[in-house]
Amino acid sequence: MKVFINVRLKDAVLDPQGAAVKDILTRAGYDFVKDVRQNKLFEIELNGETAPVQLSEIADKFLANPIIEEFKISR
Amino acid sequence: MKVFINVRLKDAVLDPQGAAVKDILTRAGYDFVKDVRQNKLFEIELNGETAPVQLSEIADKFLANPIIEEFKISR
Repeated sequence: MKVFINVRLKDAVLDPQGAAVKDILTRAGYDFVKDVRQNKLFEIELNGETAPVQLSEIADKFLANPIIEEFKISR
Repeated sequence: MKVFINVRLKDAVLDPQGAAVKDILTRAGYDFVKDVRQNKLFEIELNGETAPVQLSEIADKFLANPIIEEFKISR
């Protein structure tokens, strides 16, 4: 089974990588791009079934920095 | 409107970041984790409607390195 954990900077936190990409796209003429945020997406292959609570624990303790980042688990 | 472009290393390409995360999780006792890949997920806010062909162009020219990476656009 595969799960995806999307780790992103909170909206209130500046994302310099995303801002740099946005800037490059605007200069290249893609003026329909309003904003870019660059997230980390962890693609996790699991052995069998896993309790959602364990996935939250992994995201919270190892993948995201809860002070500045938030995460979302999807399947 | 918001679109997501997921840029990931091709399966044949080694992902050292993902491997490091997998290693840490295994050592921490999460032995149900079989494999981890770390992707870049670009969250792009657009002004109005945009042709899918332009998004593919952005992904192909600016966000992914087509030699080692592949991308997927979703909404």
